[in-house]
Amino acid sequence: MRVLDLAASRRSVRRFKSDNVPLKDIAYILEVARKAPSGANRQPWRFLVIQDDDIKQDIRRVCEEVEKEFHQRAEPSLKRWLEARGITWEKPFLTEAPILILVFGRIDEPYWVESTWLAIGFMLLAIQELGYSTLTYTPSKIDWANHLLKVPKRYKLQVILPIGKPAEPIQSQDRLPLKEIAYLDGWGEEFRGM
Amino acid sequence: MRVLDLAASRRSVRRFKSDNVPLKDIAYILEVARKAPSGANRQPWRFLVIQDDDIKQDIRRVCEEVEKEFHQRAEPSLKRWLEARGITWEKPFLTEAPILILVFGRIDEPYWVESTWLAIGFMLLAIQELGYSTLTYTPSKIDWANHLLKVPKRYKLQVILPIGKPAEPIQSQDRLPLKEIAYLDGWGEEFRGM
Repeated sequence: MRVLDLAASRRSVRRFKSDNVPLKDIAYILEVARKAPSGANRQPWRFLVIQDDDIKQDIRRVCEEVEKEFHQRAEPSLKRWLEARGITWEKPFLTEAPILILVFGRIDEPYWVESTWLAIGFMLLAIQELGYSTLTYTPSKIDWANHLLKVPKRYKLQVILPIGKPAEPIQSQDRLPLKEIAYLDGWGEEFRGM
Repeated sequence: MRVLDLAASRRSVRRFKSDNVPLKDIAYILEVARKAPSGANRQPWRFLVIQDDDIKQDIRRVCEEVEKEFHQRAEPSLKRWLEARGITWEKPFLTEAPILILVFGRIDEPYWVESTWLAIGFMLLAIQELGYSTLTYTPSKIDWANHLLKVPKRYKLQVILPIGKPAEPIQSQDRLPLKEIAYLDGWGEEFRGM
């Protein structure tokens, strides 16, 4: 399938079926990430794959505590945006999805955030290719992960990717048209490529 | 072609042929980026496509000034790493490649760095799919871009992607084995997925 078809058919999903996801599929996704380029080839990414239900429960419990606090303190405009999308402090996908991939970045490497998220981009397309869905969920606080999961402090949680088959109808989100995000030979000059 | 094949066959390239790259191919790459998810769907990315030779010359001149300074001040270990890879202050790809895509991120959007680099990950796979090569080149200073290219200050240059056919033999860079970057159900616990 073309990369554009993968990118265009991908949707963020918040509810998952419990259908098993074989670890060989997770290995494929990680293998794609492993090939990503990184600042000075330092490969700052680390992947903690969780399939154990108790650990998923622990992660969900902490995330929901953190999100409750976040939703209480959110500004009105953000609150409206969240409500319009049905996003609450509840994170059922953290226990419903058969697999979670927690992506960490090593904070003492050059361009570690940039490199790690570039690799996450690679992963999303691989997840889509295999017929799974995910969500790029970054908890509004992340430091708890080091304590809960005994992760060395030099690694920082960047995202939790629940992996599974979608259990809800999937709505696409609007995008800005190309002419509002791309310019040719001058800022604001229309890019005409098609 | 499978995503893994695209990711595994991709190489960073520093010398390009002058062969024309049609703007419809650039439009395809940007279309892929446009479909990426972003924090609160704010789509913080902007793409400035440069095919004008004079502008490319200007960009090269400034980047080489910046890199000269960077190389002079680099620590010995970094200097050795750069030398081993033949990376100098010279950036011929900035004028040799028929197209440059400058990717900017809007700094007042949530998770703007993360979202922009995720989209850059999408772009790299699209570039590879079309048979082109690139380099994720972030100049060691980036603020000059706003002035030189008349870009509003709320947008920050994240990367310059030269796009073209490779003009040098392409060496692959080693990667850490999967077992050193991926764990299962506990930090340090071996991930066995294959």
